[in-house]
Formats: sequence, C-alpha cells, structure tokens
Amino acid sequence: MNTLTSPFTGTSQDAIETVLNLQNTICEGLAAYDSKNFVTDHWSREEGGGGITRVLEKGATFEKAGVNVSAVHGTLATEHEQTLFQTLLKQLGEETFPIKGARFFATGVSLVIHPLHPRIPTVHLNYRYFEMQQGDDSLWWFGGGTDLTPYFLDTPQITHFHEVLKNTCDSFDPQYYPRFKEKCDRYFYLPHRHEHRGVGGLFFDYQRSKSQSHYLDFMKACGNAFLPAYSPIVEHYYQTPFTEAEKQWQRYRRGRYAEFNLLHDRGTLFGLKTNGRIESILMSLPPDVSWIYDEQALTKDHEELLAVIRQPKHWG
Amino acid sequence: MNTLTSPFTGTSQDAIETVLNLQNTICEGLAAYDSKNFVTDHWSREEGGGGITRVLEKGATFEKAGVNVSAVHGTLATEHEQTLFQTLLKQLGEETFPIKGARFFATGVSLVIHPLHPRIPTVHLNYRYFEMQQGDDSLWWFGGGTDLTPYFLDTPQITHFHEVLKNTCDSFDPQYYPRFKEKCDRYFYLPHRHEHRGVGGLFFDYQRSKSQSHYLDFMKACGNAFLPAYSPIVEHYYQTPFTEAEKQWQRYRRGRYAEFNLLHDRGTLFGLKTNGRIESILMSLPPDVSWIYDEQALTKDHEELLAVIRQPKHWG
Repeated sequence: MNTLTSPFTGTSQDAIETVLNLQNTICEGLAAYDSKNFVTDHWSREEGGGGITRVLEKGATFEKAGVNVSAVHGTLATEHEQTLFQTLLKQLGEETFPIKGARFFATGVSLVIHPLHPRIPTVHLNYRYFEMQQGDDSLWWFGGGTDLTPYFLDTPQITHFHEVLKNTCDSFDPQYYPRFKEKCDRYFYLPHRHEHRGVGGLFFDYQRSKSQSHYLDFMKACGNAFLPAYSPIVEHYYQTPFTEAEKQWQRYRRGRYAEFNLLHDRGTLFGLKTNGRIESILMSLPPDVSWIYDEQALTKDHEELLAVIRQPKHWG
Repeated sequence: MNTLTSPFTGTSQDAIETVLNLQNTICEGLAAYDSKNFVTDHWSREEGGGGITRVLEKGATFEKAGVNVSAVHGTLATEHEQTLFQTLLKQLGEETFPIKGARFFATGVSLVIHPLHPRIPTVHLNYRYFEMQQGDDSLWWFGGGTDLTPYFLDTPQITHFHEVLKNTCDSFDPQYYPRFKEKCDRYFYLPHRHEHRGVGGLFFDYQRSKSQSHYLDFMKACGNAFLPAYSPIVEHYYQTPFTEAEKQWQRYRRGRYAEFNLLHDRGTLFGLKTNGRIESILMSLPPDVSWIYDEQALTKDHEELLAVIRQPKHWG
C-alpha cells in the first residue's frame, strides 16, 4: 500500500499532502449522511505513480459517490505522450519547452457525487497540480473547479453553493469568482443539446501568474469550501421522501451528465488517451441513467430548471 | 409530411425507395412481437432534406427500438463542412475532388433495438448511400453493416445470425463475409475496455469498385436479411421469464454500448458535428443503463461471454 509520491521536491510534496487531506475530510463529511462508508482501493500505474480511489455505492443517501486522489509521474518518451502534453503547453504559451524526454508530475483530487435523492444535486470537484522538468527548465500550473448539477430548481440552495465559493474566492482575489464562474459556465456546455451541464460553480486552468503557495492555499481553501457549500442541500433533503416520477426525471437528466463526460470532459478523455485507471476515470458516470426518445412528456414540468440550464444566470 | 427526396437523378432515387421499404418491412416484422407499435416522427433539416424516425418505447418486448431513415442534401459552403467531407474523400483516395461548393446527398436506414428481455441481444443496422457532384465531377459510395450485442452467450443463436449474413454476402461475392466480418470486429472495439462491443456481424464503407446496381442490390439483400437473422432469437426468448439479476447485468453491459456510441461511433459523432437531428442520432442510446464501480462482483458469472467479447471468434 503505497502512499502517493512525487519524484520532485517542493510544492509537489505539499500538493500531495493537500489532496490526501481533502480526500479524508470530504469522505468523512459525506459519510456522516450515509449508513454505508467509503470502500478504499489503492492502485498503481505501471509507468509511475498511482492513486487511492474511495467509493460509496448503493448507500442510503449516495447512490454512487467517488472521491479519487492520484499522483502520477513519468518521462515523456513516446510521440503519443509528447503530442498530448504539447496541447497543454500550447495553452500555457510555452510551445518552446523542451518536451522530448521531459519529466512530468501531476497530482489531484477529484470527486463526483450522485445522490439517491433526486432533489439533491449531482456535484463534481477537481483540484490538480502539474509540474514538468527538463534539465534546468521547469514549469508548473494549477487547475480545478467545482460545479453543481441539480435536477430541481432550489434557488436558495444553489445561491448558497455559489456564495460559499464566491466568499472563498474573494479572500484570494476579487476577480477570481466572476472570472472562474464564467469559465465554468462556458466549459460545462453541451453544444448538441444547447444546454449547460448544470448551474455551474468554478472552473480554472493553467494558473501560474502568482506564487505556488498562493495557488496551493487557494486549492486548499476551495477544497475545504466543498462541504460547507454542498452539505446544507444534502442535510435539507436526505431524510425526506421522493416519488418515482422525480426519480425518473433524475435518471433522464443524468443522461446529459454521461453525454458531457464521454463527449467533452477533458479530464475523462485525457485519462482514456493516457491509459489511466479506467475504473477511477469512469467513476464519474451516473449509477442509473435513462435515455428516452420522447423527451417532451418529461420536460414540460421542468421549464424553470431548464431555463437556467439553457441560459446561465447570476446567483446571489 | 414530406417524403424523402434527392436533388439528383438515378441511383439516389432508388436508394431512397430502398431505405423506405426496409424501414417499413423491419418495423412491421418487429411490431409483430410487441403489443405496442412504432410511433412515427417526420422531420426536416433546415439546410436541406429530412427524415422519418420510428420509435417503439417501453413495449412488452422492446424497451426501446428505433428505426430511422433520412435523406439529406446540401452544398458544402462552410469550411467546417468541407473539412468534415475532406476526411471522407481522403478515405476514398479522392483528395483532389473539387469539394468547395460541391453538392452532396446522403440517404440511409439505421436501427438500434434494445429489447427488454436480457437474453435477447441489442442489435444495430445501418445501410447508406452517398453522392457528391460538382460540375462534371461526381462520386458515390455505399456503406453499412449490422452487428449483434448479446448479454448472454447463446452460441446457436449467434451462429444463426452470422450464417444468415454470410449466406447473403456469399450470393454477391464470397470475399464479402470474411472481409466485412473482420472489419466489423475491428470497428466495434472499445480500446479503454479492451473489449469489442459485441459479437460482430458485417461492417463496410466506401464501397464503389463495382456497379451502383450491384451495391444497391447488396444493400437491399442485407437489409432484408435482418429479420431472418434476428427474429429467431426474439421468438426464442420473448415470452420466457427473466430475473432481476439478469436485468441488472444487461443494464451494466449497456454502459459499454453508450460508451462506444459517445466515444467512438463515427455516425454518431458525424451527426453531432453536422448539427443533425439529436433525437434521431441519440435514439441509439440504451433506455436504462447502470455504471457500477465494483464490476468484479457482476462479471464473475459471465466469463464465457466476456471471452468472446475480448477475443472475436469465428461463428459457424
């Protein structure tokens, strides 16, 4: 049972400690709402590194909840890997970085929670740190975010979720929340449905203009904001009854979640292309999903929700 | 209510008649096993053409069955369209075709059947005809196939399915079945799962070395072979009982079907990129799907099926 490791010194070590702490804190916080607890799988990656996947399936509150941490490293030896990383460098404006044979390290925490109760939204969180080294050249950046996908429009709860994120951001930089909220709305979008995935949250990537410790603290703060942002909505609904019609609507809308993750999600597609651990990558897919041809019969009672899914709004 | 039309004369007109006849024949044949009948939607495409989608949902035998025909046409005006069609021309070795402003026509029939009974396989069929014209230059080709995705290994039934396809192929060209069977195994493959989608069938594309009437007859014969190939397995199981455990296994395996269609299926991705009718394109997605993290508990009783899914075999 290996803990996560990095071949590099400095921030990469702190980032590992951060993602492990967040995994523990969040799993403990969520497990308080369920009679089941998370099951833990340690896994290692042949090319270097590994991860710890914690999953709670078929719980009384969580139909499927996965909280994953990983720390992977290696040397960019193959053309396939170099091509993949070249697209990352392009985003950073660092196309000239000597990529061939470079060493890389990436660590992150990611979670997707699919609650049983249709009035508790699905939620996603991911915070990650990347580092590359080649001789005297080195590069690092942070990325991440969290976003909410409700099946019913509960404006006070959604507003609370956004407010917690906004307060967290504001204590670092007042530009963060408006900027990352807008990026989130833009990223979690299904063009073929003309719909956003949900009601958004935060999304950022390639952050490196300030210090490593600034972003590490920001990542910690965002991760620690997850339970205060999300728990109240679990607390509010998890012991209340729901109907089969509500459940059917949730299963139908979960189809959009699966479509986004398989068609568009960068992390998912990057994981599949780099031969990542499939079970951990696809852990995000919903437990029960229905794809229904005759959608109109279902959607007519949910126009208020669909309006904010089609056109993102300001919360709070 | 428009019927399908082509701006071109000749084979395109016969191809439309063929796909309409196949849709009628197949829907009638399938409806005989269900107390429900297909519902019909006529739709048109803003840029030219349209289609007829027939769907049977929540039937006693078919949980979701869709049989779609379309005939679309237009002029390759935008760069986006030209880039998409350039990849088709590359496959044909016709990169020099004057694509800018070319007129195109495409018609096809496609079906996906998701039966309720877990012992009746999911099945897919698609036959299509393409034509392009620009001044005196013109190009045409045929493509299509059919493949079976069982959830239980019933060797005599799978062998029968393949034998009907083989006999149909053999009456046109003895090389067709072995060649198209192998292409099918190669195409319906999920690299991240190290699994094929099912037990295969036929797959071919860019066929144009013989006459148009040869391929039109071949397309008709393959389409007409569908009911004789597939019906016996429906007939065999549709009135027999099944267990919830079998149903759960089917829902879990349907996840692979959704993964293939959203990650890899060329027709699906082409349809999404060309702003096709979403409901008809994604009609192929399974009605109820379960993604389960702890797969091992499920798979241990199904090793015989998984062996032929992992390593295609010769049937019959």
